[in-house]
Order: sequence, then C-alpha cells, then structure tokens
Amino acid sequence: MALFTKEEALAYHEFPRRGKVEVVPIKPCNNQKDLSMAYSPGVAECCKAIKEDPSKASLYTGRDNLVAVVSNGTAVLGLGNIGPLAGKPVMEGKGVLFKTFTDIDVYDINLDCNDPELLIQIVKAMEPTFGGINLEDIKAPECFYIEETLKKEMGIPVFHDDQHGTAVISGAGLINACEICNRKLEDLKIVVVGAGAAGIACSNFYVQLGVDPKNIFMFDTKGLIHKGRPTGNKYKDAFAQEKDLGSLADVMKGADVFLGLSTKNLVSKEMVQSMHKSPVIFAMANPDPEITYNDAKDANPNCIMGTGRSDYPNQVNNVSGFPYIFRGALDVGATEINEAMKIAAARSLAELAKEPVPAEICDMYGVKELTFGVDYVIPKPLDSRILEWETVAVAKAAMETGVAKKPIADLDAYRVALRDRVAASRKRINAFVESYK
Amino acid sequence: MALFTKEEALAYHEFPRRGKVEVVPIKPCNNQKDLSMAYSPGVAECCKAIKEDPSKASLYTGRDNLVAVVSNGTAVLGLGNIGPLAGKPVMEGKGVLFKTFTDIDVYDINLDCNDPELLIQIVKAMEPTFGGINLEDIKAPECFYIEETLKKEMGIPVFHDDQHGTAVISGAGLINACEICNRKLEDLKIVVVGAGAAGIACSNFYVQLGVDPKNIFMFDTKGLIHKGRPTGNKYKDAFAQEKDLGSLADVMKGADVFLGLSTKNLVSKEMVQSMHKSPVIFAMANPDPEITYNDAKDANPNCIMGTGRSDYPNQVNNVSGFPYIFRGALDVGATEINEAMKIAAARSLAELAKEPVPAEICDMYGVKELTFGVDYVIPKPLDSRILEWETVAVAKAAMETGVAKKPIADLDAYRVALRDRVAASRKRINAFVESYK
Repeated sequence: MALFTKEEALAYHEFPRRGKVEVVPIKPCNNQKDLSMAYSPGVAECCKAIKEDPSKASLYTGRDNLVAVVSNGTAVLGLGNIGPLAGKPVMEGKGVLFKTFTDIDVYDINLDCNDPELLIQIVKAMEPTFGGINLEDIKAPECFYIEETLKKEMGIPVFHDDQHGTAVISGAGLINACEICNRKLEDLKIVVVGAGAAGIACSNFYVQLGVDPKNIFMFDTKGLIHKGRPTGNKYKDAFAQEKDLGSLADVMKGADVFLGLSTKNLVSKEMVQSMHKSPVIFAMANPDPEITYNDAKDANPNCIMGTGRSDYPNQVNNVSGFPYIFRGALDVGATEINEAMKIAAARSLAELAKEPVPAEICDMYGVKELTFGVDYVIPKPLDSRILEWETVAVAKAAMETGVAKKPIADLDAYRVALRDRVAASRKRINAFVESYK
Repeated sequence: MALFTKEEALAYHEFPRRGKVEVVPIKPCNNQKDLSMAYSPGVAECCKAIKEDPSKASLYTGRDNLVAVVSNGTAVLGLGNIGPLAGKPVMEGKGVLFKTFTDIDVYDINLDCNDPELLIQIVKAMEPTFGGINLEDIKAPECFYIEETLKKEMGIPVFHDDQHGTAVISGAGLINACEICNRKLEDLKIVVVGAGAAGIACSNFYVQLGVDPKNIFMFDTKGLIHKGRPTGNKYKDAFAQEKDLGSLADVMKGADVFLGLSTKNLVSKEMVQSMHKSPVIFAMANPDPEITYNDAKDANPNCIMGTGRSDYPNQVNNVSGFPYIFRGALDVGATEINEAMKIAAARSLAELAKEPVPAEICDMYGVKELTFGVDYVIPKPLDSRILEWETVAVAKAAMETGVAKKPIADLDAYRVALRDRVAASRKRINAFVESYK
C-alpha cells in the first residue's frame, strides 16, 4: 500500500547530501572580476540604485521570486506541536514543491516562537528579504490572528497554506461535485468535523463560493458548535448553530457534504447511509481518513469520496494550490492574495477537471483513463496543466481586483512563457540532482 | 583601473535571472513516490526521528550546512545606513562567496529592524533554521552588544564579519609584517583611525595576538580617544589613552603601524615619513584608502602597504576569512567561534603566505610571481589553498578548546575530503551557471 518504507524516506533525506535544498549561485564567481561584481565594490552600484528607487530591488536581487515558508512547528502535518526543529523537514519539502512546480525560490524559516505578537514582529521585519510569506503549520486559533495582522501590515502576499490551500482544492472539488450531482452550493447541508485552521478556513471559503453559513454544522472535539456552548474562539463561534442538534450521527442525517479535518475512523458506514443519496465525503484526516475510501463506497457506491491520500481517487493535495497561487501573485506584483484570487484558483481547477486528461498523466498514476465524474472531480496533483490554468487565473483575478502592481497585458504570451520557464527550471533542477549521482 | 563598468555590474545582477542565488532541490521530485517522500507522508518519518532525538536534524535537514547572513542594513560597505532592502545585493553576494569557496548554503536575512533587542529576539528565534549566524553590516556600537548577547544565548556559532573578518585577515598581515621587519607585536605602536565595528575589533584582536593595549592609539571622528574625553561608548573607551596627545599627525610620529578604517585621503606622505623607518600601513577605507598605495610607497619605499583593493598588493579581503572559519566551525559542530579559532585562522593565513605560490594563482592576478615580502604578506583572496590551511586550523582549534561537538579524528583525511567536496561543489555550481547560457 505504502509507496515507500520508513528507511527509504529517511535515506531520501540523508543521502547523497543531507536535507532537500541547496542555495546555488547563478552568476559566475571564478575570477577577480566576477568577485568584484558579485561583492564589493561592484555590488555597491545595485545598492545605490535600490536606495534611490526601492522598486529596483526587483531587478538586482532575487526578492520578487523568493518566498518565506514560515513555521513555528505548533501544528505540523498530523503530528501536532512537534516544534520548529522537528518541523524543518516539512518546510524544506514545501520549498522543494514550490521550486519544482513553479520555479519559486524558498527559504524555510523555522522559528522557536510561540508568542503570536513576536512572531508577527519577526515576519514583518523580514519584509525586505521576501516577495511573499507562506505561513505553515502554525496552530489555530493563533494562526488566524497572525495571518490577519500580517496581511494588514505587510505590502507583500501573506498566505497561510493550512487554511487556504485546503479550502481552495476542496472548494474546487465541491464545485464539481455539485455539478455532477446536480445540486446548488446554496442548498448544501455541510457537516464539518475539525474546527482548526483548515476546518474554519474551508467553511469560510465555501461561504465565499455560495454556501449558506446557516447550513454549515461544525464540530470541535466537544461536539457541535452552538450558541448554548460558547467556545471562547470567535472563529469557531461564527459558525455556531442556534442550539445543540445532537451527536455527529444525528447531524449527519440528510447532510449533503461531510468535510473531515479531524481524526481517523470517525465516520461509520451507517452515517454515510443516513446522508443524501449521492453524498460528498471529503475525509481528509491524514494519513488515515475519517472513513476509508472502501468503506464509504461500500456504504454508498454513489458517494463522491475525496481524501488526502494519493492512493485513492480525488486526492485533496495542497500542492495543487500554493505554488500556482504564489506564482500568479508574484508575477503580477500582487500586494496580497485576496478572496477573488483564491476563488479564481478553485474555479480554474474545477474547470480543468472537465478537460480530457492526457495519457502521460494517467500513466503517472497507473490508471488507464481519468474521466470527469464521481471518482475524478479535481485534477491530479502532478497534472502539469495546472500550472497554466491556475496561475493565469490567479494573475487575472489579481489584476481585476486592482491588487497587481505589475499588470500583464498579454496573458496568452504569459501562459506560454510560464510553461517554458518552468520546463527549463525543471530541466536545470533534474540536471543538478543528477550531478550527485 | 576599474575591472568593470557600472552598467556591467548592474547587468551582472539582472541577467539572465535576477539576483545571485537560487534555491535548488537536491532530491528528485518527479513522480508520486518522490513527492510522497519529499513531503507528506514520507517526511513525517524525519519529523518523528528529530522530535525523538534533536541531533537527527543534522542527518535529515540541511541545517548544519546552512548559515544565515543577517543584516539590518545600517552600515553597508562604505555606503552607510542604506537600509535592509538596498543592502540585500550585498547579503546575496555574501551567500555567493560562502557557497563558492566552501560549499556553505546561505539564506540572506535582511531585517527592517533598528532595535537591538528585537533584532536579538529575531535571530534567536531562528536558531532551529540555521547551523550558524553571520551578522553583517550592522552599525557600531549596537553590533557589539548584539553579537555578545547572541553568542551567550545561542548554541550555534555567531560571528559578526565586519568585526572579526577584517581583524583576522589584517592580523595575519600584521604577524608577517613583524616577521619581515624583525619587530615584536608587543613593542608595536599602532595608530587606529576609525572606531567603528572593524576598528575596535581589529584592536581587540591585535591585543589577543600580543599587542600591548597601551600602545594602541585610537581616533574617532572627534580625535584621539583619551580619558579627558569620555565617548559614552565603552568599546571605544576601553582604548582611551591617559591624555590627549594631539592630532593624527602628532600621534603618527614614530608609530610602527597605521590601521585605517575611516575615509580616504586622511594620511599624508609627511605622516608616513614621520613613522618608523619601515612602517606598516593598512589603509582599508573602501574603495579609496586613507592614502593610496602609490603615495605611501612614494613617501617610503620600505613600507608594508595593504588596502581593501584587489588592484594593489596585500589586499585585506574578508573573503579569505569568513567562509573558511565557518566551514571549520560547522564541520566539527562547534558551538561558537572563539578567540582561539580566530587566532588559528590568522596564523594559518600568515603561514600560507610564506609558501611558494603556484603559477596558476599568480596568473589569476596577472603577476609573474608572488614572493613573501613587503608586497606579499597575506595570501591572495582567490588562493584555493586557503581552504585547506585555514579550515583545518580552525577545526583543530575548536577541538583543542573543547567547543567541538563532533570532533574529527583524522584531520589529514578531512583535509583531502574538504578539497574534494569543494571542488565537486564548484563544478556543480559552474554547470548550473552555464545552464543559463
């Protein structure tokens, strides 16, 4: 079942060189002249030009293509609060994905810092270094306050992927599930289990897509969130139902959608059978979902079932989101990643899922074909077409909402240049990796 | 005279890709299995291993080979307080040098932060990210307090290059100058002009090497530092003479050494002629020294003259120090860079200058030969032998002073492995640079 053993995963990280990234000069530095330009005195020309006109930093440094993946390690994967050092392999990995899929350079910044105010000050201070900030694996509810504050106070895109990544990808799936089942977003009854960063962000995003917030039934570890039990967490309480409506089994009855961001084995076959006749189940606890694909299909073969796993259909994987959302944002000099840009990202993924899938993508996943339907509502994470579809959609939305400092006039030319750019980058990366063999 | 034009320096930074570094994955990420190991779920194995045993971060991340070049841009090159954004090209350049000469990966961290206490908190919080901290271009006197505090409170090497880099390289020159002129360090009368980071650090370091602090005559912008004029800066006042001894011209009379870290054209030929009959003049204002090489030699052909410039003999260039000092420190898991390690670095450079210089190094500098003597007291910055000499000396000193967490048993084998490692890295870097052509 697993694609690899524990030993393989450890060896992948340790050999032939420790870790997953390397910072490589892209300018020659082999003689006195090179040295004088790369450093003193030549570099002073760039410093003076930027001092005079700060926008020149875009020309003479890598800042506009450099994103910080910032974490304090308080909510890493399914592992919880393991701290910033133990979280570093994940943040390096995020950098690998950014670079591989969109040629964005990443510095992973792992902070020993549990004070939200200090974390905010630290990230703000780093603004001259980066073109964008990807917050990662920071626990709720602080993550909401941290992101909100940074978005307000920084002039570059700030994006907490655990919130919005999952929201965008599952949102794309939800749009298509509605189409397949011929239902409307505004009519859906949605049960959300897990009121952390992703659960709350998904719920907020679905409301942006058209879901009625009154139809969202959110559970935290203590049960349904309702007005009779204030949680002390305003982000949760925003979804409080008027009164307690019973257990998960009670509330699941007649629900159209189950969204799980909690722990394994929460959902029984009986619960699935109590839902709408063609229910949507996004069971995203990782690696073990709230109900397995096989159990859900066994309970109701008509269900649209998504998980966080690559070995079952409809994998909800943030990698289909964050690299492209940042690529589009950076390329038009967006000052933020706003709702319109996230919605555009979700819609572009939803549209792409309806296109015929090239054979090489099916091959990559060991399947004969992938056809739009219950077992294929979102594009596969490794689908190289996502680059063009999603990035261009995000860039366009940034321009339309007036947050693009450097609008692109010809989006078709951009699309082609983007494809060529990333292909060339992949080739360089692969040659670099090969050079270790 | 200049090796390049302003336009060339700007173009070097802008084309073919903006900036000077790129963050490149070193592990394959081309299929579902790769993806699962680089990120979730495979990466979780590394996280769990590190959570259980933090020392495992050395195996599964690049941390131990990753140095932060941290600056707030308050004292950049000779440009002054130009701020962190305008300073970024310098910090990226520093990364290029670290990587090129010693295969150390660098994240440049440019901080919008003028509050020393906050800067300290920020750098401390980043400890899980990095194996070492290189402070850069932070103005005096805050730089002293910042470095002292971080050295005390962090478990990894912290090194302010503007202080210690210049100290180590000029210290090597001073050791050899004494040998050539047959004088003793403890007898030298030294005039220091410029009481900033480098001036104070050089003076402190020379004392470590054997100079009598009473024989150091330090000038700040207001004149000789003496007890009748407290400066309010304890780092300066530590060098206060008992009383005012007059102008620079007065104090230069009979001096053995002039150390300039100030501004151009401060020193006249007459002053040089009033010094010891074979004086040492390190005129390191950049790009224009306190007195030009030609004027100094004209005043006294016997002088040992060093500058920060590559186009004259005896270039005092920090690049002969920081990459190798960090390489040695990282390789033995040093918890700090202590005085013994800096002294070992200086002595190794001094010794290397006495070795015959291979023809290819002479060629690189367009000279027929380089022979130990007044015009060659320190190795050339691009001398590839520095790697083995200095790095091994620093590693050894770290072990001898008990700060090495991972002592190396066989230093000869280490020396060979080091040479091979950096050669292979240079080859990979050059191929990567070439791939843009």
